[in-house]
Amino acid sequence: MFQKINIGSLPKGQRNTICDVPGVKVGHVTLSDGDCQTGVTAITTHNENAFNLRTRAASHVFNGFGKSVGLVQVEELGELETPILLTNTLSVGAVSEGLIQHTLAETPDIDFVMGTINPVVFECNDAFLNKISALYVRPNHALEAISAVSEEFEQGAVGAGRGMSCYGLKGGIGSASRQVKLGNKEYHVGALVLSNMGRMPDFTLAGRHIGPQIEEKLARDESGPEKGSIIMIVGTDLPLSERQLKRVARRTSVGLARTGSFLGHGSGDIALAFTTADPVDIKSRKRTHSVEQMDERRIDRVFRAAAEATEEAIVNSMLNAERVTGRDGNTRYALGDFGELMGDANE
Amino acid sequence: MFQKINIGSLPKGQRNTICDVPGVKVGHVTLSDGDCQTGVTAITTHNENAFNLRTRAASHVFNGFGKSVGLVQVEELGELETPILLTNTLSVGAVSEGLIQHTLAETPDIDFVMGTINPVVFECNDAFLNKISALYVRPNHALEAISAVSEEFEQGAVGAGRGMSCYGLKGGIGSASRQVKLGNKEYHVGALVLSNMGRMPDFTLAGRHIGPQIEEKLARDESGPEKGSIIMIVGTDLPLSERQLKRVARRTSVGLARTGSFLGHGSGDIALAFTTADPVDIKSRKRTHSVEQMDERRIDRVFRAAAEATEEAIVNSMLNAERVTGRDGNTRYALGDFGELMGDANE
Amino acid sequence: MFQKINIGSLPKGQRNTICDVPGVKVGHVTLSDGDCQTGVTAITTHNENAFNLRTRAASHVFNGFGKSVGLVQVEELGELETPILLTNTLSVGAVSEGLIQHTLAETPDIDFVMGTINPVVFECNDAFLNKISALYVRPNHALEAISAVSEEFEQGAVGAGRGMSCYGLKGGIGSASRQVKLGNKEYHVGALVLSNMGRMPDFTLAGRHIGPQIEEKLARDESGPEKGSIIMIVGTDLPLSERQLKRVARRTSVGLARTGSFLGHGSGDIALAFTTADPVDIKSRKRTHSVEQMDERRIDRVFRAAAEATEEAIVNSMLNAERVTGRDGNTRYALGDFGELMGDANE
Amino acid sequence: MFQKINIGSLPKGQRNTICDVPGVKVGHVTLSDGDCQTGVTAITTHNENAFNLRTRAASHVFNGFGKSVGLVQVEELGELETPILLTNTLSVGAVSEGLIQHTLAETPDIDFVMGTINPVVFECNDAFLNKISALYVRPNHALEAISAVSEEFEQGAVGAGRGMSCYGLKGGIGSASRQVKLGNKEYHVGALVLSNMGRMPDFTLAGRHIGPQIEEKLARDESGPEKGSIIMIVGTDLPLSERQLKRVARRTSVGLARTGSFLGHGSGDIALAFTTADPVDIKSRKRTHSVEQMDERRIDRVFRAAAEATEEAIVNSMLNAERVTGRDGNTRYALGDFGELMGDANE
Repeated sequence: MFQKINIGSLPKGQRNTICDVPGVKVGHVTLSDGDCQTGVTAITTHNENAFNLRTRAASHVFNGFGKSVGLVQVEELGELETPILLTNTLSVGAVSEGLIQHTLAETPDIDFVMGTINPVVFECNDAFLNKISALYVRPNHALEAISAVSEEFEQGAVGAGRGMSCYGLKGGIGSASRQVKLGNKEYHVGALVLSNMGRMPDFTLAGRHIGPQIEEKLARDESGPEKGSIIMIVGTDLPLSERQLKRVARRTSVGLARTGSFLGHGSGDIALAFTTADPVDIKSRKRTHSVEQMDERRIDRVFRAAAEATEEAIVNSMLNAERVTGRDGNTRYALGDFGELMGDANE
Repeated sequence: MFQKINIGSLPKGQRNTICDVPGVKVGHVTLSDGDCQTGVTAITTHNENAFNLRTRAASHVFNGFGKSVGLVQVEELGELETPILLTNTLSVGAVSEGLIQHTLAETPDIDFVMGTINPVVFECNDAFLNKISALYVRPNHALEAISAVSEEFEQGAVGAGRGMSCYGLKGGIGSASRQVKLGNKEYHVGALVLSNMGRMPDFTLAGRHIGPQIEEKLARDESGPEKGSIIMIVGTDLPLSERQLKRVARRTSVGLARTGSFLGHGSGDIALAFTTADPVDIKSRKRTHSVEQMDERRIDRVFRAAAEATEEAIVNSMLNAERVTGRDGNTRYALGDFGELMGDANE
Repeated sequence: MFQKINIGSLPKGQRNTICDVPGVKVGHVTLSDGDCQTGVTAITTHNENAFNLRTRAASHVFNGFGKSVGLVQVEELGELETPILLTNTLSVGAVSEGLIQHTLAETPDIDFVMGTINPVVFECNDAFLNKISALYVRPNHALEAISAVSEEFEQGAVGAGRGMSCYGLKGGIGSASRQVKLGNKEYHVGALVLSNMGRMPDFTLAGRHIGPQIEEKLARDESGPEKGSIIMIVGTDLPLSERQLKRVARRTSVGLARTGSFLGHGSGDIALAFTTADPVDIKSRKRTHSVEQMDERRIDRVFRAAAEATEEAIVNSMLNAERVTGRDGNTRYALGDFGELMGDANE
Repeated sequence: MFQKINIGSLPKGQRNTICDVPGVKVGHVTLSDGDCQTGVTAITTHNENAFNLRTRAASHVFNGFGKSVGLVQVEELGELETPILLTNTLSVGAVSEGLIQHTLAETPDIDFVMGTINPVVFECNDAFLNKISALYVRPNHALEAISAVSEEFEQGAVGAGRGMSCYGLKGGIGSASRQVKLGNKEYHVGALVLSNMGRMPDFTLAGRHIGPQIEEKLARDESGPEKGSIIMIVGTDLPLSERQLKRVARRTSVGLARTGSFLGHGSGDIALAFTTADPVDIKSRKRTHSVEQMDERRIDRVFRAAAEATEEAIVNSMLNAERVTGRDGNTRYALGDFGELMGDANE
């Protein structure tokens, strides 16, 4: 119904998700029962062993009021060695341990004297709907989310997004993509977000500042501080170096700002960009690796694609989310509950 | 005429410029003659000697495709020791030398064995209107701009902003401010920008995406890459630490993104935030200094003020700019040339 | 016996450990049984609830090939909200969960909608002596280490240091301190390291390059790449801002380099500096906080103290370690096994 | 005479300077007359136009108490577009302007609307010997230094090093190199330093802590704070990415620490690493560039080479410097004035 939201000017990918990047898959484990409203989402970047075939990546921290792990090594070495997992803030430890168990099981021949495992786990705080202190997520949920990955995946109040809130409404997992041409070849830039930030009066949908109207309908005061976080993952098959990927990661903030956020104090906003091009095969004996790197003067289109896909992924996390009632009877309404305002956005 | 543009929700300061922060002054030298369309703008943070009474500051680089100088030391020591100067890209050296001459003249007793002078000079590239390779700006222009500082200053195509372009129209110097309450006390957050970035189709005025309409009226193609830069200076009298000032500097990107920019490749986007509170007196013999620091849980209002003032300062740089014809007859139209579209924005 | 090693020129503290900083305590849980040679070490910075009374801190990553967690938020907010824990690389998740359980138990009134818990856990890789993939460390070991803190603590092959190696010999936990005067007042700068890096041929003891002689005696080849990591914690009671603490953290690399390390590729070298001065009381309703900040021109003595204490802490981690045989019968000799060379160092 | 100083274990290059890297050249302009004791040093990385054929590079700031320019853009784009120039602190502006004049003259076809020029100029403070406030260095000196580049160049009290001091003795320009094998191919890692830091009591020559003995002979007190700066440039022909070059730049601190420095407060310590491999041809129309990147697991030898070459370059800056008397009759003795102590170092 809401597929016609138009953001930006670049063409969308076929699925309009991060899975338009060939090889990328997403899976969820959703835990929903009374005051337990949480979960885990996994992103895999190719079909091989993630530890043996490293995906090149870079991250950028906009607001470090967050507890995500693994970024120190990504910054130093420019590569991922596990799937990317998302969950709630207090479950990062459990999911890290699950990611280590997964990697140990898949890769029995790791020489730990030479290197270990760097789990990459992102988080947002779902305490409004989920009894976060109950630590419902266990290590096995990480393994289940990885097992569930597919090129088709649900968005909204699912996986790590189950208990998240966005602009005072229900948020969670959202995704979108853009196509980028380089010469005759078509490439893809996809975004996946875990949205959990913003105050309703700030919300802007595809350039329309409808937050105040929604606030009025809800007849309650949401003018507290901006809380929560957003995690923004950008994947591409374009040939980009780690330095270029870092530049791309930084442009996600443009998409974020356009939905109305001002990067509030309590909002741990973090982005990671990866490319499936030229992965590093650690079994290789080669002394040097040849890496294709996009000509820098053509990179603007990638920045634009990352900004547009991120903005739309945030909107999609809200459009696809259902209303959820969780901990202590707390309820988050869905953007879909305000369909008449939405209609305007589709003009 | 265009004073009624409303951006954000916080109250504006009395002058609605960075000079609402007590003690802050701005001065320009404008060079305008044929293919010479450039200049220098100076910001002073108090009325004392800048070298002896250090203003605490922090900066953030969004896109480092720029040539501004002095930031390495600001990052390390968290203070300014000269006025802040702005000019064109190729004149940073000349203006740095002028700033050194100024400091030498004002401060004859510097012990150079113990320390030197860190000129802080920002730049954008005005080559479209100005014959930048002629190096028209000389060191004495820096001294003249500093001499010209006042609490009242012009905006638009003046000073360093003389030759700058913004979203394909005339940009330059713009400013705005917000008031922030802490307890019963009123504080100020002011922004001053040197705007020189953006593609017209992206331009958004106070939430209205009017760029495409202007583009149509101009009947020419501006769909090239995003070029140029923006410098965003935020001043305040709030008690903030250097770490907090850095957090504030980062929020200027929100104001920038809301005008339509996506931080293009060729756009050297840099922010600096300073506070006039608790300056460091280097003549003091005290072993420790007491610094007031705002409670972090109340800082959201400052972030919001910085974002709003920056967005409005960008708009003001365009609203106040006149049409300019410069190098090789190149012309930049003014936003005011499209008054009928503007009118809509004032609804 | 080896107390007479002299490093640097500043006076040592009374205990010559990080616990010379008033309020700081250290505790260990040591797991030692066959191929299980690992553990947990805890540092508490004062006797109050760590979540409610935040200790100001800053970190610096020299080499990010490591998996420590919590640093993103320390960088953003400049404070600790849990004790500091150290363990082996694959146990960071379990120890994080233990630290969360500890904080939940101590602080039942946390409002999770407003904020969560940022566990700070550092790690090195003890796979040479410890079967790291067995994940022997469980969350309860974190709680036990915190319960065990005291102003007196063992050094060497204990706690997180049980399985660590340093310059091809037995390393682990080491500590040292220096006294720094500011006016008439005596302050303390203490270092605690988890040492696990270096190649024997590079080892330099208090300025004497004795590594090659030890290598010869051992009659084996240790000329592989530099592996492992080092964690360097510096505590002080000096009045320092977060910016100044970051400068102090950076100086630990000087102590490290003087023992012979060249910051090898596979060595995740990370430092954290904290001060017990002016902690942040989150129960306070004050709008601003007064923070004492040392005059920057006097800070050299603190840099020197941090460098000296770190160098000596590394040496102490080796001097106090016993010989350990662990996984697959692997053995690390102790520096004490080469007493005749040590004697020279005590001249 | 002092060629036999042995530092580290890797083989030296044929010239034992940065010019062992094929294509790299160095030139000086030395100004020496009474209280004028200063100059300019230029490094060119190849024989082509530096603006059109970009050399890939990365920098690292250890202590930002310095005024070097151009690093913001190097960090963002990973490339040099001018020769690298070194001078005194207050002459950075003049030398920047000279570098711009040089680039304009060599490259008349620059399209300034698309991009400008990023001068890279490093500095140290030579105020002890040079009347720095007289601004003796003019833009033309930059052009002269570039014209003077050659594969053979003097070290010591020449060029930018004319007025510099190191550990209380005469410092200045020093260089050294190491050979690194990758498969059957021989590569080079060269260092060039502008040394101007340190307190005499800390000085360590090739592992021998002889500073206190020299201090005694000089019969004067040099126990003030560590002042000044050091600039450390590492060049190589190894295939390294910008991320890898940044890792290399960070290892120069190891060489610095081994000579005795503890990165004092007032010491602006900055490193830059560049590779002559795979330069970026901006006249190319290719959409992607193929860049060779060394296998990360073999990079330790490069780190070691950078550390060793830097340590030796610092020593060489002192060994090759003559005694200089300058401003107000101030004199810096040369390390060679203490030949008997040096002899020991050559054992």
